[in-house]
Amino acid sequence: MLLEQINQVNDIKKLNKEDWEPLAQEIRDFLIEKISVTGGHLASNLGVVELTMAMHLAFNFPEDQVVWDVGHQSYTHKLLTGRRAGFDDLRKYGGMSGFPKRKESNCDCFDTGHSSTSISAGIGLVKARELTGGHQSVISVIGDGSMTGGMAFEALNNASQLKSNFIIILNDNQMSIAENVGGLSQYLNGMRSNEGYNNFKAGLQNTLEKIPVYGDGIVRQLKKTKSGLKQLVIPGMFFEDMGITYLGPVDGHNIDQLIRTFNDAKKVHHAVLIHVCTKKGKGYEPAERHPSRFHGAEPFVIETGLPKSRRSKANYTDIFSTVMRKLGDRDEKVVAITAAMPDGTGLKRFKNMFPDRFFDVGIAEQHAVTFAAGLAAGGLKPVVAVYSSFLQRAYDQVLHDVCIQNLHVIFAIDRAGLVGSDGETHQGIFDLSYLSGIPNMTIMAPKNKWELSDMMKFAVNYDGPIALRYPRGEAYDGLQEFRAPIAYGRSEWIYEEADIALMAVGSMVKTAEQVRDALKDTGYNCTLINARFVKPIDEQMLEEVAKQHKLLVTLEENVRNGGFGDHVLEYVNDRDFDMKVLNIALPDEYVEHGNVALLHKEVGLDAETIVKRVITAYVGEM
Amino acid sequence: MLLEQINQVNDIKKLNKEDWEPLAQEIRDFLIEKISVTGGHLASNLGVVELTMAMHLAFNFPEDQVVWDVGHQSYTHKLLTGRRAGFDDLRKYGGMSGFPKRKESNCDCFDTGHSSTSISAGIGLVKARELTGGHQSVISVIGDGSMTGGMAFEALNNASQLKSNFIIILNDNQMSIAENVGGLSQYLNGMRSNEGYNNFKAGLQNTLEKIPVYGDGIVRQLKKTKSGLKQLVIPGMFFEDMGITYLGPVDGHNIDQLIRTFNDAKKVHHAVLIHVCTKKGKGYEPAERHPSRFHGAEPFVIETGLPKSRRSKANYTDIFSTVMRKLGDRDEKVVAITAAMPDGTGLKRFKNMFPDRFFDVGIAEQHAVTFAAGLAAGGLKPVVAVYSSFLQRAYDQVLHDVCIQNLHVIFAIDRAGLVGSDGETHQGIFDLSYLSGIPNMTIMAPKNKWELSDMMKFAVNYDGPIALRYPRGEAYDGLQEFRAPIAYGRSEWIYEEADIALMAVGSMVKTAEQVRDALKDTGYNCTLINARFVKPIDEQMLEEVAKQHKLLVTLEENVRNGGFGDHVLEYVNDRDFDMKVLNIALPDEYVEHGNVALLHKEVGLDAETIVKRVITAYVGEM
Repeated sequence: MLLEQINQVNDIKKLNKEDWEPLAQEIRDFLIEKISVTGGHLASNLGVVELTMAMHLAFNFPEDQVVWDVGHQSYTHKLLTGRRAGFDDLRKYGGMSGFPKRKESNCDCFDTGHSSTSISAGIGLVKARELTGGHQSVISVIGDGSMTGGMAFEALNNASQLKSNFIIILNDNQMSIAENVGGLSQYLNGMRSNEGYNNFKAGLQNTLEKIPVYGDGIVRQLKKTKSGLKQLVIPGMFFEDMGITYLGPVDGHNIDQLIRTFNDAKKVHHAVLIHVCTKKGKGYEPAERHPSRFHGAEPFVIETGLPKSRRSKANYTDIFSTVMRKLGDRDEKVVAITAAMPDGTGLKRFKNMFPDRFFDVGIAEQHAVTFAAGLAAGGLKPVVAVYSSFLQRAYDQVLHDVCIQNLHVIFAIDRAGLVGSDGETHQGIFDLSYLSGIPNMTIMAPKNKWELSDMMKFAVNYDGPIALRYPRGEAYDGLQEFRAPIAYGRSEWIYEEADIALMAVGSMVKTAEQVRDALKDTGYNCTLINARFVKPIDEQMLEEVAKQHKLLVTLEENVRNGGFGDHVLEYVNDRDFDMKVLNIALPDEYVEHGNVALLHKEVGLDAETIVKRVITAYVGEM
Repeated sequence: MLLEQINQVNDIKKLNKEDWEPLAQEIRDFLIEKISVTGGHLASNLGVVELTMAMHLAFNFPEDQVVWDVGHQSYTHKLLTGRRAGFDDLRKYGGMSGFPKRKESNCDCFDTGHSSTSISAGIGLVKARELTGGHQSVISVIGDGSMTGGMAFEALNNASQLKSNFIIILNDNQMSIAENVGGLSQYLNGMRSNEGYNNFKAGLQNTLEKIPVYGDGIVRQLKKTKSGLKQLVIPGMFFEDMGITYLGPVDGHNIDQLIRTFNDAKKVHHAVLIHVCTKKGKGYEPAERHPSRFHGAEPFVIETGLPKSRRSKANYTDIFSTVMRKLGDRDEKVVAITAAMPDGTGLKRFKNMFPDRFFDVGIAEQHAVTFAAGLAAGGLKPVVAVYSSFLQRAYDQVLHDVCIQNLHVIFAIDRAGLVGSDGETHQGIFDLSYLSGIPNMTIMAPKNKWELSDMMKFAVNYDGPIALRYPRGEAYDGLQEFRAPIAYGRSEWIYEEADIALMAVGSMVKTAEQVRDALKDTGYNCTLINARFVKPIDEQMLEEVAKQHKLLVTLEENVRNGGFGDHVLEYVNDRDFDMKVLNIALPDEYVEHGNVALLHKEVGLDAETIVKRVITAYVGEM
């Protein structure tokens, strides 16, 4: 095994050139084997094996610095920097992260997770190098999908001003998670097809030799070949136009060619972009065929590529998917928007049924939201389906473009709460706070799968900005008997008792049920209320509750600051109710990766911890 | 007066062609006269007089729809749509807004205020038109400065997919508020200089005729003229590459040429970009010479262009400017970043003294913050100077790129609180909420000008993400005698009494002083505490306060949801202190434009209202 000789950074340099290809094969086998057990990002990592090896052969880490955009493609980098053993507990609680982490290795110089940040961070490292007199190379590796995010463009616009070396590697696999979209993607495709023309000189010479000279004919001829001409004369002119030297396209699976290009790139005294063409899922046939399915994979059977365990129950995304199809059928004003996640958000079926009313805007949450505002201003009912942590990107657009104008945009916020193995960057634990502070916004959270449907229907018939948030994973199918119609701003009694009231948001209703059962066993009878609305809170219900309870416990899977509990506490305090409030929420901390049940325990959102806290608070009040 | 014949939309079409130029002159005179009295955005409006007239001549409003990017350049549009009388109370409380407002006119189809949103909104209107069977034109007018914002690029990337007409007018005046920056700007400059080549055909023909043919010479020759060639062959290739038809450049002060181009543009069956070159401040010499000063102007003397009243006292921006210069001098690791506002943020002096350590990144707050994270990861101490409402754009970058890694980035947040005449889109009333929810973040607010300096010094010597927020306008110079050293997380006793404690954040310390004085006159003695830190709150102080007070009043110029008062209330509730909390903060509403003192009254943040509320709350506790 060559891989066993790779125990720390730069060990790869000790190998013979003939070993490179076999090592690449070993790395692929290793990744497939490990990820088939732990789950994780497979397709993107298989695509950059040679690219990462070439980087480690051409550069000197940790002196040189690489920023991985998004970072899910950093597995080979982890392997080559002494973290092979970490793959056994990849993305597990306490184990190795699936993303670059500065605290994990000095070869990780900048943490990533969300898209399109790497060029900005890279420019920061370059400027710091200039000002502190360093000499290291700084490299940002960014996918063509991430390039559709606006901040990558903001960064390119600034990279062009650099007066010292900065290497941007554009890893072009023609994919975001799903297929890439937009004008830039078309443009890159054009370049990919001109692989013979690796530099300006050759391209230009060839072109000119083919053009008939003199007379009107030239123009007609050129007009005909206009798009071809653009590509041939100067590949990468898009980047050159911005003042960034373009090298490529380069075959991303040819280590020799990559190393040569990296060495050329080092000689440039400003920003240089290397266009590297790779194949997502390369070397593992199921992943090559279904790169989207193998983007973030659950454990799978290597031989077939099929998941090891089939889900028996529907998850919230499935429920959303079904209700969107129905809503689309019933109301032709309903349109749907995703930022590069037609599968993840469950919109694929809507897309297939209503292709004209489905919009994948690329990794562009800001545009997605303001585009939705425009659709709403034009009389449609846009549903923006987005993950909680990614909607953070469009905070200003929600506040400034949707809510000031009080436009009817529906936000279907998936992956709200703890998401598990993706960790800190992906936990959806801030949305209740950042959305609550925005005037005109309505926020809901369903207790179970039926309520998700009911709330979506309610949202589509409401008029104004409205969000509903639901967690990753299996949809709760308990409490089916409680299905009172959704009324604006009204919560739902589930069990009515006295003394202690539990008022829970969304996913925490199920937990609150468990808490209630456990408390019953200990001799405490609790009222259980499903909050339904996080904004506005149900003041009428709070009046009722205050009459007959000494302790009100709020439960939410969101940081406490600015969350549901805060709003309830405000109201109880303002009205001087003689009722103690206990806020159960997430602490003011980032939450690492790991199994969600474990994480719940860790942050105190498990039934057992909550029961203890409720009893303490209640006894304290007596 | 021709202007008197323009009383409603489309009246301009009744004029003779010969009247166009005189009308343009009348409009300029009108704008200069009115804005010299009320203040407002002058330079940008003077630049688009002919452009707006041509639009009103070539299109039919309100059927056709125009989205003005940022929207501060919509004054001529307001004039031509029956809002002439509104200019007397422009930007005053209850008066006409300085931005497009749907509630003001049916000729305003989408509200704007922040930069770079217009193309996204426009695409939304186009798609709504397609799906609802409309036939109107949709036009987005965007400046070259706004084009440096990433979401404009996200939108362009999507505009290229349109299969029906969408007109983007690029108003290129080579300026953001200050001079425009970056690769895109350079590129546009190149095109501006090729005004003779208005279309592909002419440009191409000319180019080819000049090239010597055959042999190596071609390549050498072409390489030499490479950048010239790129421009000549196909002007606007940057846009054409994205699949967007490019027309231009067009002289933005030639109404005939503009109308012809608009009519050409209407025939395109997809997205078309018209590159219009204008002069910011056109027709008023002081504004042409100092477009940045006349971007958002205070009332001025027409003859000289000088402000009518000179400020006698320094404002917070001045204080920040001075301390940055000192800090830059003392510590060469201190660097400064602005997103296109070197003047507004007060960084111009720092720029002049330390040009290598100053970065204007364009209207690109997202990049600004992640770039700062990169600088901090590289060992520097970046200060991001930004307005409160614009930092909203970078919420995710603060949360994801700075705070997860706990990087030492300093956020100097100007225009925090109510800003006045710019209104809803620009009020800085959310920052305490959206920043408080973020783990690892520290937030401060100075009570007066000395404390701003002290806090900046503290922030530079701290290690971790740290923000300080200060309001627009005159810096408070009272309470000079209270200048205890800043200690992490510690508030400051100002006056110690019993029963009632006022704990105020930043700008509200001055108000709290007034409240305290008024209460004293009524027979109530109050403790006054300067909070200093909004996060973390000073728990030790709260313990002390609880011992000797019955009522704790928190005061902040921020929405209540998720703000300082919420955090204090949480703590008091958790500790079961026998002390009532009264939160004085902004209501859950957007606040319109108007004089800040008036607005304070309107939202209940004036001393008089607060005194009443404090007395009511205190008496209620007795």
